[in-house]
Amino acid sequence: MSKSVGKSLKRVDAYDKATGRAKYTDDLCGREALIVKICHSTIAHGFVKRIDTAAAERIPGVVRVLTCFDVPEFPFPTAGHPWSTDPAHQDVADRLLLNRHVRYYGDEVAVVIAEDEVAAAQGVRALEVEYEELPFVLDPQKAMEGEAPQIHEEFPGNILKHTDIRRGDYQTAIQEPDLVKVEGWYDTPTVQHCHIENHGCFAYEEAGRVVVVTSTQIPHIVRRVVGQALGIPWGRVRVIKPYIGGGFGNKQDALYEPLCAWCCTQVGGRLVKLECSREETFISNRVRHAIRTHIISWVRPDGTLAARKFEAFSNQGAYASHGHGVVAKGMGAFPQLYPCDNLECDCWSVFTNLPAAGAMRGYGIPQAMFAGECHIDDICAAIGMTPLEFRRKNLMPVGYQDGFSKNENYFDTFNQCMDRGMAAIDYQRKYQLYQNQTGPVRRGVGMAVFWYNTAVWPISLESSSCRMVLNQDGSLQFQTGETEIGQGCDTAYTQMVAEAVGVPVESVHVVSTQDTDVTPFGTGAYASRQTYIGGFSIMQTAQALRERILQVAHEQTRMPVSNLDLVDGRIVRKSDGRELKSLGDLATESLYSLERSQHITAETTAQIKSNAYSFGCTFAEVEVDIPMCKVKLVQMVNVHDCGRLINPALAEAQVHGGMSMAIGYGLSEELKFDEKTGRPLNGNLLDYKLSTCMDHPTLQAAFVENPEPTSPFGTKALGEPPACSGAPAIRNAIFNATGVAFDRCPITPHVLYQKFKESGLLKEESHV
Amino acid sequence: MSKSVGKSLKRVDAYDKATGRAKYTDDLCGREALIVKICHSTIAHGFVKRIDTAAAERIPGVVRVLTCFDVPEFPFPTAGHPWSTDPAHQDVADRLLLNRHVRYYGDEVAVVIAEDEVAAAQGVRALEVEYEELPFVLDPQKAMEGEAPQIHEEFPGNILKHTDIRRGDYQTAIQEPDLVKVEGWYDTPTVQHCHIENHGCFAYEEAGRVVVVTSTQIPHIVRRVVGQALGIPWGRVRVIKPYIGGGFGNKQDALYEPLCAWCCTQVGGRLVKLECSREETFISNRVRHAIRTHIISWVRPDGTLAARKFEAFSNQGAYASHGHGVVAKGMGAFPQLYPCDNLECDCWSVFTNLPAAGAMRGYGIPQAMFAGECHIDDICAAIGMTPLEFRRKNLMPVGYQDGFSKNENYFDTFNQCMDRGMAAIDYQRKYQLYQNQTGPVRRGVGMAVFWYNTAVWPISLESSSCRMVLNQDGSLQFQTGETEIGQGCDTAYTQMVAEAVGVPVESVHVVSTQDTDVTPFGTGAYASRQTYIGGFSIMQTAQALRERILQVAHEQTRMPVSNLDLVDGRIVRKSDGRELKSLGDLATESLYSLERSQHITAETTAQIKSNAYSFGCTFAEVEVDIPMCKVKLVQMVNVHDCGRLINPALAEAQVHGGMSMAIGYGLSEELKFDEKTGRPLNGNLLDYKLSTCMDHPTLQAAFVENPEPTSPFGTKALGEPPACSGAPAIRNAIFNATGVAFDRCPITPHVLYQKFKESGLLKEESHV
Repeated sequence: MSKSVGKSLKRVDAYDKATGRAKYTDDLCGREALIVKICHSTIAHGFVKRIDTAAAERIPGVVRVLTCFDVPEFPFPTAGHPWSTDPAHQDVADRLLLNRHVRYYGDEVAVVIAEDEVAAAQGVRALEVEYEELPFVLDPQKAMEGEAPQIHEEFPGNILKHTDIRRGDYQTAIQEPDLVKVEGWYDTPTVQHCHIENHGCFAYEEAGRVVVVTSTQIPHIVRRVVGQALGIPWGRVRVIKPYIGGGFGNKQDALYEPLCAWCCTQVGGRLVKLECSREETFISNRVRHAIRTHIISWVRPDGTLAARKFEAFSNQGAYASHGHGVVAKGMGAFPQLYPCDNLECDCWSVFTNLPAAGAMRGYGIPQAMFAGECHIDDICAAIGMTPLEFRRKNLMPVGYQDGFSKNENYFDTFNQCMDRGMAAIDYQRKYQLYQNQTGPVRRGVGMAVFWYNTAVWPISLESSSCRMVLNQDGSLQFQTGETEIGQGCDTAYTQMVAEAVGVPVESVHVVSTQDTDVTPFGTGAYASRQTYIGGFSIMQTAQALRERILQVAHEQTRMPVSNLDLVDGRIVRKSDGRELKSLGDLATESLYSLERSQHITAETTAQIKSNAYSFGCTFAEVEVDIPMCKVKLVQMVNVHDCGRLINPALAEAQVHGGMSMAIGYGLSEELKFDEKTGRPLNGNLLDYKLSTCMDHPTLQAAFVENPEPTSPFGTKALGEPPACSGAPAIRNAIFNATGVAFDRCPITPHVLYQKFKESGLLKEESHV
Repeated sequence: MSKSVGKSLKRVDAYDKATGRAKYTDDLCGREALIVKICHSTIAHGFVKRIDTAAAERIPGVVRVLTCFDVPEFPFPTAGHPWSTDPAHQDVADRLLLNRHVRYYGDEVAVVIAEDEVAAAQGVRALEVEYEELPFVLDPQKAMEGEAPQIHEEFPGNILKHTDIRRGDYQTAIQEPDLVKVEGWYDTPTVQHCHIENHGCFAYEEAGRVVVVTSTQIPHIVRRVVGQALGIPWGRVRVIKPYIGGGFGNKQDALYEPLCAWCCTQVGGRLVKLECSREETFISNRVRHAIRTHIISWVRPDGTLAARKFEAFSNQGAYASHGHGVVAKGMGAFPQLYPCDNLECDCWSVFTNLPAAGAMRGYGIPQAMFAGECHIDDICAAIGMTPLEFRRKNLMPVGYQDGFSKNENYFDTFNQCMDRGMAAIDYQRKYQLYQNQTGPVRRGVGMAVFWYNTAVWPISLESSSCRMVLNQDGSLQFQTGETEIGQGCDTAYTQMVAEAVGVPVESVHVVSTQDTDVTPFGTGAYASRQTYIGGFSIMQTAQALRERILQVAHEQTRMPVSNLDLVDGRIVRKSDGRELKSLGDLATESLYSLERSQHITAETTAQIKSNAYSFGCTFAEVEVDIPMCKVKLVQMVNVHDCGRLINPALAEAQVHGGMSMAIGYGLSEELKFDEKTGRPLNGNLLDYKLSTCMDHPTLQAAFVENPEPTSPFGTKALGEPPACSGAPAIRNAIFNATGVAFDRCPITPHVLYQKFKESGLLKEESHV
């Protein structure tokens, strides 16, 4: 049973993507499309009083101008979550297609639909928008204060949601004598996903329905959201997802699909296209939540934890989007990663007048790991224990079971991963070597671990359908709602389907394009769920298909089903191993049987209720040039236990990509806003310092393959984990090199300068 | 159970087609496509000795020239029949992609692939083809003679196939005293389908497979044929069928899809397009078989039939295509329509050096009805009985059962149809009135009946799958392999699905585009099988879907399945008729159930083994201007029993279209060829006299709705029948008006002149 899985098969889309033949959304849009351009607000908070469209309407080529005074009054949610039939569990519907109450600098107030890009852009420039300005707030803790401007009427104090975790008795526990109190505040920045392909979509009417072709991770969910936003039955919407050039969670929201679809309906169903510029992608799509975390740990002299306090303030920005799920997931990691009997944990998602924060690779865990793993090294410094020793002593033990999720830690994964990582980076020797450096250029090694599981806010519903269609040559098509977004899942599916059905990988044709009219329901690509949750669905459907095949084989060969098997595309008699016929012959005879013609297909929905843990760690070595305020990343290695590897080469590529994101998160990336106006300052790829290969050492990925027992293929999450522990490992390496404990990321030259000056490492004159 | 079926619902594609929004094959092809143009042979028979491509290759924009010396040696069949796993029942594989042995004037010898149309056309003109010419033959009876040129080595005497029917003892029966012998030879012409949209297709490679988008009636069959022609596994071919602008059987062959797909593979998988001009459509697609029929009837003085002889010589043209199925079906009608105890029937399909004949609306029945129904009026004239009286006495009686097909005539359909038709045209009064006319302009009334059943050569395998996908709003998508080709089946399906599932018609979304990757297997649109055979599949799958829905309803409501029903999109408790919930709520709750998430779909294959009779008749009135040799069609009415009407307005439109074709067949349409060269003479819409609305009286359609018991919806064939009895009715009306018994169609002014002169109606001087 392992002819297909576990091999580094070449990506099934490699040739088409490398040659430019693969079609992305914009490649598929007809040239006759009308162009939609958005007029974004130029204030951070206020009301649109009036929009004068006359000048825009006079521009040749402008077909239609639509404003926030024209949109239907159907508030809709945008998060890529399963819908809940329980209203209490539904995502917050706080948007209209265009907004009279503008809540951030960049909010949508109007659109111009024109025959071409130029006319549309001219039209947008010609709009005269009159605002009533209101005070705004950018900081979540300030937004919680009484006098702060109110951003959404329904959420007093701007608090979207607050949740907590309580365990034991924190107040009593901290009375224990001899405890060392370690306290820290940690800040993570607003960053953007920066997928290569910006979000774009186009829409047209067909047979009385609106069709939206879009660069999304979640076509079936977008179908529902478009229906909600336009106030039409969801079945009157069809969503098609071609190849897409990355999403990383940004496209796990309905972005401009509802607006594009509505524009289409306002011009008689003509084809309209709405493409985001990079600047719009930065500001008016989604960003990763900036979270400020406050941790207090009460530590015994032996390095065990007596009590801990955790507070997180998550900057939600202007709209709810994925909302509280992100910071809540981060908080959920806290008590599990380093179990402690006495805990007080609280987290708040707070509206501010910034771009809406949504899902981004890691979904709260990169923020939580930055705070939590920096804090661990702060504890180690405080009590004089090595980071390795502390972690070996305190990390989640084998056999740990979470009371709420029922997840279980089946293996000694953490120690295995750390051992692999240490060996790869020669950690122990270097950790000793780098003690007591005094020169201007110093080296350091650091580590950080991460905790991850798949589980989707708010109801952890994991449902996935797939369909397999047997062809006359014994090959088959495989359809699923779980989308290829560049991560390689079509290739992994090919291997999994081949193994589960019992055919060669060449016989599996994955239908890459999702089309909500014909694609079995699946919620899409997110939460690192593809191979784990998709795997349940694949295995279950493959078994249904095998049953049908073996039943037909029985009818054709007279052998009992119990003496038949399907191996490598051939019907085999078990008793003597003889090949009775090819699957192609079986399928063809079945289809053209005069007795009982059958087209052999199978389709099932699988639902899972477990959310396997996925663990790992990062080790990093840095060289810090103190006078130059410069950090050079010398070496970095990620070690992952994502269970059994479906495709080692693809897994390695996933890890490399995540490490690159973590490097940017740790050292350079941050979206900045003008405190005086709320205006974005660097929402473009020139000023936003995206991590590129110029900033990377050779990226090293290693794996510990503990087969996950809850998974039919023994696999579990790998999509997001690589982005989770890199930034704190770099911070801890800088700490190790310099003795300076940074409390935020990214650790840019500006941050280094400030802290080195405070710590006395930089003399006043050194920066003149 | 009849909220949806039986209503004249507006076509579901009406708006898109009327506004030009509906996408046909060429609308979908990217502008970057390379253009393929074909070099057709300029001799009727011979061998290509050499093709000099140098000049063509020098033309700027020419990318590749491929000739008959480059093609792979995989002979392939083209007929749109179910494949048979029994080689004896497989269609004849007598083609290569391009031919060294050219068999008709217009055969394919080379292609030029170029950046644009102009370069491709220039390239074709620049090719120098050197032939070794051979004698050729255009007439099937001459082709059967010993000295005739041999067209296919494998078929001595050029006979593709001969079959016969024997009943009783013909030789003894004709010895009966007092029999009147009536003998006739009847010729029908070569005609072409003349659908509005010429055949065209484009191909590109994707994920290591070749994708063909094509104007075809039979996407799943084309997939198989492309695989056979290219010698690749069939699963490596994907065929997509968008809206198509008519087919009438021409597109029930694989036409240029194999050649286009192969061209694509020869230019590195780039997008290539091959579009037929109208001239190519006439000559190098398919035509209707010209059939010469010889009938001898031995009739008793009381008008009963003692013995009959039938011989048909079918002009197959150069390639086998649908081959013998066509004339064999026509011969099959002969003993059933007017049962007779003593029969000798023979038919031959004979290769000639003419364009290949394939399927065309009626599939042998228009030819057989022309011969047979003309002959009936010839009998009537010989024995002095009225055409009506003879038919009432001899037509297939109620309760008749065919020994081979087991088809049964359940109703007194023929008399009911004739009564309706006579009333509509005031037949009896006019028949009397038009006796003994003597003037130069005379009127006449004529009638003809037809016999039709669905049954596909060679194995009558009728298999059809469909899939239904329930949406969260209670609407559903319906997918089937049985294609919309302009005839309106998507609308009929909408009504049938709505009725069978129990939802409003607005809730049914038919997926009109067939895509062999995801569309359930069905053989396509032909043999008037859509509503009859598709209906089995729809009913069966709807029942499977209803079962799943009611099971979920039971889980959600606690009511037993036996007390639940789905009516008009609502779950109803039978015991008190109370509506418990909408289907949308049921679907949504099912999908997002935390206990058992289910995406509700159903897919089944239905196979039917009956082929219901579909009967009817045409009544025509003509005014014949003898000196002018002109026939004016004054009135025409078709009456059909196609069982229960799914959509009366669409049914009427089907009949109108078929009547138009029958009028052209009877009066004007014929493809002509130069006897000296085999060159086509009128293969264009200027010189080929296609019947248009200028030639029509107001077309009248009437229906007798005898519900077919073998059909779940009580319906049966209507697509082809309207084309079957019109031409002989017109001929019989002319006979009635003038006393001249024409023995061929079309009855053009040339034919009228010739016969009127022979009969003395036209004096020698009258045409000077």
